[in-house]
Amino acid sequence: MTEHLYHKYVKHMTLEEKIAQLLQLAAPFYDEPGDHSEITGPMEELGIGSETKLAAGSVLGIAGAEKMMAVQKEHLKNNRHGIPLLFMADIVHGFKTIFPIPLAIGCSWNPELAEQSAEIAAREAAVSGLHVTFAPMVDLVRDARWGRVMESTGEDPYLNSVFAKAFVQGFQGDDLRNDVSRVAACVKHFAAYGLAEGGRDYNSVDLSERQLREYYLPAYKAAVDAGVEMVMTSFNIVDGIPATGNSKLLRSLLREEWGFEGIVISDWAAIKEIIAHGAAEDEKEAAFKAIWSGVDIDMMTTSYVNHLPELVAEGLVDEALIDEAVLRILKLKEKLGLFENPMRGADPVLEREIVFSAEHRQVSRKLAEKSSVLLKNEGVLPLAPEQRVALIGPFANSGDILGWWSWTGSKETAVKLGESMRILSENPGNVIIAEGSGIDSISESQRNEALKAAADADVIVLAVGESSEMSGEGGSRSNIKLPQAQLELIELMKGLGKPLAVVLFNGRPLDLHGVYDLANAVLEAWFPGSEGGAALADLLYGKVNPSGKLSMSVPYSVGQIPVYYNSFSTGRPKPEEETGNRYISQYLDIPNEPLLPFGFGLSYTDFSYDGLTLSAETMKADQPIEAKVTVTNTGKMAGTETVQLYIRDVSAEVVRPVKELKGFKQVELAPGESSEVVFRIDESMLRYHHSDLSVSSDRGQFSLFIGASSKDVQAASFRLLK
Amino acid sequence: MTEHLYHKYVKHMTLEEKIAQLLQLAAPFYDEPGDHSEITGPMEELGIGSETKLAAGSVLGIAGAEKMMAVQKEHLKNNRHGIPLLFMADIVHGFKTIFPIPLAIGCSWNPELAEQSAEIAAREAAVSGLHVTFAPMVDLVRDARWGRVMESTGEDPYLNSVFAKAFVQGFQGDDLRNDVSRVAACVKHFAAYGLAEGGRDYNSVDLSERQLREYYLPAYKAAVDAGVEMVMTSFNIVDGIPATGNSKLLRSLLREEWGFEGIVISDWAAIKEIIAHGAAEDEKEAAFKAIWSGVDIDMMTTSYVNHLPELVAEGLVDEALIDEAVLRILKLKEKLGLFENPMRGADPVLEREIVFSAEHRQVSRKLAEKSSVLLKNEGVLPLAPEQRVALIGPFANSGDILGWWSWTGSKETAVKLGESMRILSENPGNVIIAEGSGIDSISESQRNEALKAAADADVIVLAVGESSEMSGEGGSRSNIKLPQAQLELIELMKGLGKPLAVVLFNGRPLDLHGVYDLANAVLEAWFPGSEGGAALADLLYGKVNPSGKLSMSVPYSVGQIPVYYNSFSTGRPKPEEETGNRYISQYLDIPNEPLLPFGFGLSYTDFSYDGLTLSAETMKADQPIEAKVTVTNTGKMAGTETVQLYIRDVSAEVVRPVKELKGFKQVELAPGESSEVVFRIDESMLRYHHSDLSVSSDRGQFSLFIGASSKDVQAASFRLLK
Repeated sequence: MTEHLYHKYVKHMTLEEKIAQLLQLAAPFYDEPGDHSEITGPMEELGIGSETKLAAGSVLGIAGAEKMMAVQKEHLKNNRHGIPLLFMADIVHGFKTIFPIPLAIGCSWNPELAEQSAEIAAREAAVSGLHVTFAPMVDLVRDARWGRVMESTGEDPYLNSVFAKAFVQGFQGDDLRNDVSRVAACVKHFAAYGLAEGGRDYNSVDLSERQLREYYLPAYKAAVDAGVEMVMTSFNIVDGIPATGNSKLLRSLLREEWGFEGIVISDWAAIKEIIAHGAAEDEKEAAFKAIWSGVDIDMMTTSYVNHLPELVAEGLVDEALIDEAVLRILKLKEKLGLFENPMRGADPVLEREIVFSAEHRQVSRKLAEKSSVLLKNEGVLPLAPEQRVALIGPFANSGDILGWWSWTGSKETAVKLGESMRILSENPGNVIIAEGSGIDSISESQRNEALKAAADADVIVLAVGESSEMSGEGGSRSNIKLPQAQLELIELMKGLGKPLAVVLFNGRPLDLHGVYDLANAVLEAWFPGSEGGAALADLLYGKVNPSGKLSMSVPYSVGQIPVYYNSFSTGRPKPEEETGNRYISQYLDIPNEPLLPFGFGLSYTDFSYDGLTLSAETMKADQPIEAKVTVTNTGKMAGTETVQLYIRDVSAEVVRPVKELKGFKQVELAPGESSEVVFRIDESMLRYHHSDLSVSSDRGQFSLFIGASSKDVQAASFRLLK
Repeated sequence: MTEHLYHKYVKHMTLEEKIAQLLQLAAPFYDEPGDHSEITGPMEELGIGSETKLAAGSVLGIAGAEKMMAVQKEHLKNNRHGIPLLFMADIVHGFKTIFPIPLAIGCSWNPELAEQSAEIAAREAAVSGLHVTFAPMVDLVRDARWGRVMESTGEDPYLNSVFAKAFVQGFQGDDLRNDVSRVAACVKHFAAYGLAEGGRDYNSVDLSERQLREYYLPAYKAAVDAGVEMVMTSFNIVDGIPATGNSKLLRSLLREEWGFEGIVISDWAAIKEIIAHGAAEDEKEAAFKAIWSGVDIDMMTTSYVNHLPELVAEGLVDEALIDEAVLRILKLKEKLGLFENPMRGADPVLEREIVFSAEHRQVSRKLAEKSSVLLKNEGVLPLAPEQRVALIGPFANSGDILGWWSWTGSKETAVKLGESMRILSENPGNVIIAEGSGIDSISESQRNEALKAAADADVIVLAVGESSEMSGEGGSRSNIKLPQAQLELIELMKGLGKPLAVVLFNGRPLDLHGVYDLANAVLEAWFPGSEGGAALADLLYGKVNPSGKLSMSVPYSVGQIPVYYNSFSTGRPKPEEETGNRYISQYLDIPNEPLLPFGFGLSYTDFSYDGLTLSAETMKADQPIEAKVTVTNTGKMAGTETVQLYIRDVSAEVVRPVKELKGFKQVELAPGESSEVVFRIDESMLRYHHSDLSVSSDRGQFSLFIGASSKDVQAASFRLLK
């Protein structure tokens, strides 16, 4: 398949030229005026010569059609084989049109909109000269301390897999060669990066191969199955070996077992970092381990260019291994049509037209509406246009609502909450805006301003949260509460005795003590993206009915971490009712349950679940069954409900989770309307990794749950016969 | 070896009699007046017949020579084979003479005293009719939330192994048959119970086999190598399978690989709990999995007695498997000399003489002195006899200083701090005692009483902490601070501006914010046991110089857990100096380092470390090297220093810890005195589990550290040649 590329290019290339193809340099090497080196990692003097630069295979972090075209033109003028550069960048949740952060997208339970968001991100990126995005990030997350939870769709392998596929499809489309408005996707971070110990970014990871395969790998696998072109290694160790030098992970599992034929790229400087891990004595050994493991592209270190030549000369690395890596890179360039069309989709004119277009922003707004989660509502929301509203807090009129990984976006153009609320209010003067506090400071004058703003209000809306740099890469926090200053602001406002709604802007599930207990309503907005203010105003005024459901549990407190819905029972599970028995698995001081469970989210209307029935009480491998339930909108407003299907294997060879998400369906119901929701359950949904890691199902008892969250369910049971 | 037992007993026993040997019943079944069922787990109606009871093989929780003898006599009267009962109980850190909790003993770094404590515990237990103690507990712990950290010697595999051996030796001696003052030991909880997720007792455990073998197994292995007679299974899962039904763990690893020939006993009800775990549909399947895995004794469930007969009848379990288990039990009975001497060491007269004797209590006092750790001292300690001292706090004169797992001890006879301090003070009136607060409440009158007590004092000593039930089994806390009431008390006392010393009573490392920052001196007493008050008074008044060193890191806060000294470097370790670089492994809000590191502990004198030298810069497998350092007492008081040796493998096939304890030596030095401390380092100390789990060393660079803690060290380096 790549033979023609070998004959046309590889066999004519010097070893040095081949190795340079494996090098990825960042934008500053191409005289990019802005230095984006702080975006993804430790930039350092690499000290490479201009020859190597001219032979380099790819570049990261250049965006903008004109710039890209200039760099590509210059590159081709100097590259003796005429091999164009691949342009890559982190386009994670939008290019200029920023969508809600992935954790928020996860809460939409709407893979169609997620795909659309990726398609738009690709369109804007492609027209700006990019060929590859370092997305989707599909790391399973269970620790809210970790800053990069904002970048994942959450804690569930099934839901993450659904979104992984949607994102890959959205970015790549079906034909990268002919559809130049798409870009190649790069799934990351392979593997299990989300399990960083203590929630501290880049920290060590340890888990059994069973956990790895059963919970952490499925979303990466889903991306591979969806045809993702690239895989990025993770910074962490996997079974004691840095992922970037881990041949069991990259070669045996990813390439041999899964059959992945695309490019493997290191994360920023990760090859050289094998030394800091203590798994290589020097850059040469690091390069050796990485190339042997099957890492094709060395992002931003000179490990490959400086040491592969001598490794080949010494006979430690077969040149054929390098040829393979080069061929994978050339193959992607060919797939993208770069040899014929090195400028591909880059188009300065079209760029001005479609990037951040009204059409694109409309989709971002819709996704923000679907991603926000109503966590509590004691009749305070929706607001009425005639109400006098005091909108107070550091996010009342802030543009810092894009979240981390939005370097191509602009906070200045983000739609602010206050401005949007004034539009929906009967009279703009009805919405009085005050800052109330900074992110982590509160002054006397801010307090007074807040009190003044609230004085004549019918209702207080507090817009509080974390600044975007409090999550994201390198953004781990040991304390996951709101900063003290904002907790003070909430308490101050609570003291006024008026109805109090809180809108939360944040990149992780927070410990909501001091918020959830005091407020009459809480709307979790996450970082909602470019159109955040507009979407939230629609939700607050009831122009749109909230429908988001948590894709990650909200822990009771940091001392409860990790807490997630699909845990195991233990031998001494805590009964529902208090027994006074000390000898059960529990804390003395807090509940076992999170404050808010996976799948949870309220609406302005109510839904009832009735008449759960199974088509049969037994199932056979070739005889699936159906589960039916009637969902009714019993409230007074049209709304969307996400109906969730969970299954539990009651007894198995290895312990199985108390519940596992196996499907979900969204229904839109008018007031009083009912819908029969049907799920098909087949034997393949009951399979798991046995003690020998083989995947199959066992005969026996299963519990089935359908409901509005992982906790609020109807139950039935059936037996699998074999 | 057991053939004669087979011929004498087993071949004459019915299947039911054999199975009954495998049953262990708790004291209440033998009309023990006190119900100890709340001590170790969920007691329930077992519904067994008197025939089974009469054939039962062992009993748990009976203590007292007369009671034991009566039960044994009655039993033998009715047992047609004349097979005596084995009497077992949880004698964890003392029988009536309660020693400091094991976590405190770990901080003594004194295996000789630890062994002596076990020997005394054995002596008191044996004379009271016990044959087996369910100790030592050697679970490696890294999570201070877990209540059972009090029962472990800490976070280090080497130190835990040293203590495991010492305890086994102390309990068992060299000849159980002839030395009737010893008891058989039962190491627990096999395996990795200390890794309960979220620090929640009984919770799921997941780890790689590498972590299991490298860090969690060594202490159990040390106990097995020391000849421990029994092993207790843990409540948790290991690689997805409950330990109690885990044949890979119990049969392949423990019996086949390690060659363990003693008895495996389930923890309380753990066989039946395989059902709750979801790894057995019913008691029959649970019994099947346990017997197949090699569990000999079923503690407090009827899984074996009710279901093994039918499993044998159905051909699912070979009767030979049951014979094996019976033989192991009979073999221990024979080893203990019970067939000839069923009352063995039980002796009501001697019992009154030696149990809780002055001699035994003296050893407990000494161990308490060695176990307390001086965490901070700004010249406030030691106290002078002429000083007026306000001793305030819920532990000022409390007997709740024994800690969990001291059911045979008595709080009433514990030596209280206040009383002991009055003895050492120049004048008893110099020590004014006030409660100041309860454990978790503080009243106006308590506040006033505290203020009054402090009014005329030269120095305030606060005796604060956790009640004993706030740790121990089932005693997990999500918040590891002192209760709020006591933090308030500290703040109140701090406000007086007088020198402030804090003595801490607690079963886990605490988050010391609000304590460490406010106090001028902090002495960590843990739960110091029967003689706690006397030992602490000696330390506070400088009759004894503190020498304890932490065997578990004191975390900065709960949000930092797990934090331990022998962690891996990561690819982006945090440099010593602040760089402003976001992209390193760190938290935004707290340091990576614990508040106080493993190995840390102060003295009333100072020690300097000088002139670290190695005998050679290279080592070969058959040519060990020596490391020497001169330790000098540079202060004004005689003192004991624990000199610690750590090694780091700089680069290896799998990542290795930044430091690993490889040895330690205690030196007692007079003021001005020096001692040359020498460690021998050989190749076996450099071995680790490679990627294929084989154990060997690699040639290359090693760092060696000698110092006063895991942080405060001198460094050198050498190469291993091969």
